[in-house]
Amino acid sequence: MSTTILTGDRPTGPLHLGHYVGSLRQRVALQQTHNQFVLIADLQGLTDNGSNPQKIRDNIPEVLADYLAAGIDPNLTTLCLQSALPALAELTMLYMNIVTVARVERNPTVKNEIAQKGFARSLPVGFMAYPISQAADITAFKAECVPVGDDQLPMIEQTNEIVHKMNSLLPAPVLRHCKAMLSDTSRLPGIDGSAKMSKSLGNTLHLSASEETIHRAVSAMYTDPNHLKVNDPGQIEGNVVFTYLDAFHPDKDKVAAMKAHYQAGGLGDRVCKNELETCLQELIAPMRERRAMYMQDKGELMAMLKRGTERAQGVTQETLREVKVGLGVPVF
Amino acid sequence: MSTTILTGDRPTGPLHLGHYVGSLRQRVALQQTHNQFVLIADLQGLTDNGSNPQKIRDNIPEVLADYLAAGIDPNLTTLCLQSALPALAELTMLYMNIVTVARVERNPTVKNEIAQKGFARSLPVGFMAYPISQAADITAFKAECVPVGDDQLPMIEQTNEIVHKMNSLLPAPVLRHCKAMLSDTSRLPGIDGSAKMSKSLGNTLHLSASEETIHRAVSAMYTDPNHLKVNDPGQIEGNVVFTYLDAFHPDKDKVAAMKAHYQAGGLGDRVCKNELETCLQELIAPMRERRAMYMQDKGELMAMLKRGTERAQGVTQETLREVKVGLGVPVF
Repeated sequence: MSTTILTGDRPTGPLHLGHYVGSLRQRVALQQTHNQFVLIADLQGLTDNGSNPQKIRDNIPEVLADYLAAGIDPNLTTLCLQSALPALAELTMLYMNIVTVARVERNPTVKNEIAQKGFARSLPVGFMAYPISQAADITAFKAECVPVGDDQLPMIEQTNEIVHKMNSLLPAPVLRHCKAMLSDTSRLPGIDGSAKMSKSLGNTLHLSASEETIHRAVSAMYTDPNHLKVNDPGQIEGNVVFTYLDAFHPDKDKVAAMKAHYQAGGLGDRVCKNELETCLQELIAPMRERRAMYMQDKGELMAMLKRGTERAQGVTQETLREVKVGLGVPVF
Repeated sequence: MSTTILTGDRPTGPLHLGHYVGSLRQRVALQQTHNQFVLIADLQGLTDNGSNPQKIRDNIPEVLADYLAAGIDPNLTTLCLQSALPALAELTMLYMNIVTVARVERNPTVKNEIAQKGFARSLPVGFMAYPISQAADITAFKAECVPVGDDQLPMIEQTNEIVHKMNSLLPAPVLRHCKAMLSDTSRLPGIDGSAKMSKSLGNTLHLSASEETIHRAVSAMYTDPNHLKVNDPGQIEGNVVFTYLDAFHPDKDKVAAMKAHYQAGGLGDRVCKNELETCLQELIAPMRERRAMYMQDKGELMAMLKRGTERAQGVTQETLREVKVGLGVPVF
């Protein structure tokens, strides 16, 4: 049997090229060889949008359209909705009793996010508990691999702690330890040169970006601020255009040659940007078109999600049943 | 339609006379006039027994037998199991996002319990969050009345805060505010004179107590330590025998006469204790017998609980559906 993978997104906005490089591209490849579940984590999306539920609701079809546009095939990948899988909430409730408040507060990922989001005293209980909910997601699917960025490694560690502790309470182990599958591509920077492409920084390129938006984004892209004349030697490090060429250009040799030329001097930013723009236009155009087509029938998108969720119901309910039986919780 | 009541117990041990006076007796009366749900709160029982699930499992039939022995009629009262009602876990997950950590930490009931149980740094997340879970229970049944002791009033307050906040996020109110129904009997002291009858203090009388156990308990019961000779005037206040006579003796006039006699002097502790013992033997004997009979078939007890839980499924799922629709969470 092929290895089970769980991955997913919080439906807080349409996906962008950062997602494409960091996860979507990988999922399209993995669905050929793995038993892949992709979870639309709407409950997790609500942990810091509890008072703004329409944002989550509205973005579910957006994210689904992004998935399909990027090449995720609902016949190869099980697409499912977190809130429609009660076993995930039920496992969370059970796990919450074997994790201390001190332990979740010590989770570095959560600590950073709490600081970033400026929660202070207004931290919702659901946000504090989300590592436990995520452990419920991963274990409910008996996922062996979880594709994550390196900032998410503490979440995998915490999940495996819960697996260990819960299994020790059962007559025989039920839950499976999971491994992080680190993306081989480093994080895509924002078009402005920020470390991360992020909606809140306004430095993204969406899969729905128009020709004109792509053109403007590439034109405004951060290069080497000291590369003033074409003949000056230019710097590659921190030069977003080259980072993007690395990430997206299909011809690696050509990019290597361009880099050498740029470093030696004589290759202008405009030429590099044109090369990148062509490449991005070619990448995004078919995704944009497919995406627009899918978005014309949100009802069919949701029906597809419902079908995947029904498939996911079986595996998650079975895990819950096994945990309950092991704990002695009555199963009716 | 009659008023809906939700009440229940954590299945952490067999019930005792404190429960009988504080809740069971009341439930037997209320089931005649109210739409009463009694929840066996096994998930809540796990919040501070996460590593000892067999304690919870083993006590579910014990508590059920106590209910039936005390006169709760499963045809009049819906008996149901918390862990078998997924809507309760799902509502908890939704409510957790609109309650801050600061707010639950400020809940006086939880604060006291955390101190009593000596959790300190080992506080489980589930225990910290249990007021939210309790709010999910109450609101899922759309309970209007919740019988509680006065130490539980902050829980009702917190529930109504969640009702208010959640309703404000919905196009039309779905959740119902609830009222505390304070027990008219004050808390039954332990047989040793402690303020509370409590298993951990070892000062209880269970509904299954044998004739001999009742005899010994009454013999050892705390009276007036200064009432050394029969003819001395005795004190009623803090005299557990009289507190119990007040709580259990069917003839109030007789008890009033005894009190006057005792205060004046001339009524011995032994006579008072005999009167109380007769009364407790008569109260407990039929409960003990019925209880032993029910405990002979735990399978039938659990089947009965399953039937009640199926009835409860309908109302709780409907509330969850209404909340989800209001929030825009997809309902498949």
